[in-house]
Amino acid sequence: MARTDFTERACSVARTLGLVGEQWSLLIMRDAFLGVRRFDDFQQHLGIARNILSDRLGKLVEHGLLNRVQYSERPVRHEYRLTRKGIDLFPVLFALQKWGDIWAMGDDEPLRSVVHDACGKVTHPVPACSHCGETLTPFNVTASPLPLDELAAERG
Amino acid sequence: MARTDFTERACSVARTLGLVGEQWSLLIMRDAFLGVRRFDDFQQHLGIARNILSDRLGKLVEHGLLNRVQYSERPVRHEYRLTRKGIDLFPVLFALQKWGDIWAMGDDEPLRSVVHDACGKVTHPVPACSHCGETLTPFNVTASPLPLDELAAERG
Repeated sequence: MARTDFTERACSVARTLGLVGEQWSLLIMRDAFLGVRRFDDFQQHLGIARNILSDRLGKLVEHGLLNRVQYSERPVRHEYRLTRKGIDLFPVLFALQKWGDIWAMGDDEPLRSVVHDACGKVTHPVPACSHCGETLTPFNVTASPLPLDELAAERG
Repeated sequence: MARTDFTERACSVARTLGLVGEQWSLLIMRDAFLGVRRFDDFQQHLGIARNILSDRLGKLVEHGLLNRVQYSERPVRHEYRLTRKGIDLFPVLFALQKWGDIWAMGDDEPLRSVVHDACGKVTHPVPACSHCGETLTPFNVTASPLPLDELAAERG
């Protein structure tokens, strides 16, 4: 059976997972938000095999989440910089971190705290309604069901 | 080379990805938020192979994101219900959907709109500071660097 290509599904979440959902890719993006830009730094920080890192960075560039930019002529050196599309992944990664802080880490394990510069407090993200600002939960939103023909398309 | 076990890393995002980051698992959780509870309904809706679905549902139960509950005695039938730990994944999935709506879907493709019941408007989630409510971006937060020994642990 062929590997499922999630990018061919008519569903936003599936397609996102097809583009950037691979675990190493998300960890690379997480590192990019922490300021990592260079191949060797990603490699060292993630402890990832160089061929896998090279493949994932290539895909993230191909999909437009990172730009590969030359920063030195002699020797020729490149670094990877977040694009607008990549920066927009911030809420996903921050939400993953919050979930993990609560549900995946032991009580005695150190967490990476994030400070909101403006208010100076350690913060975590709360999903707010883009219209009125109230906190969104699974219990106060209603998702429109897709029509049947779209469900068929979603099945791919 | 052995497959990386992300759950052994001392990093919140990596561990989260190790627990629930597999693409089918996240799509199953997405379906659970849309109200899907039964094996055959997941199978039909996702177009997933039954053995893969069985494996992923088992892992989600094992990790405590879904409960397997008997809902019929004759015949014996079970369904899968979100736990508190599973419900807490809502911001992750909603953020994935938002990113995909903007960056992964074509202009002519239908999106699954979500309405905020209280204000009645189509909504998407904006990450707000848990302390002051202001919108969080990569440019107005500061992540604490982990000490070196924790980085070593993070490398696994």
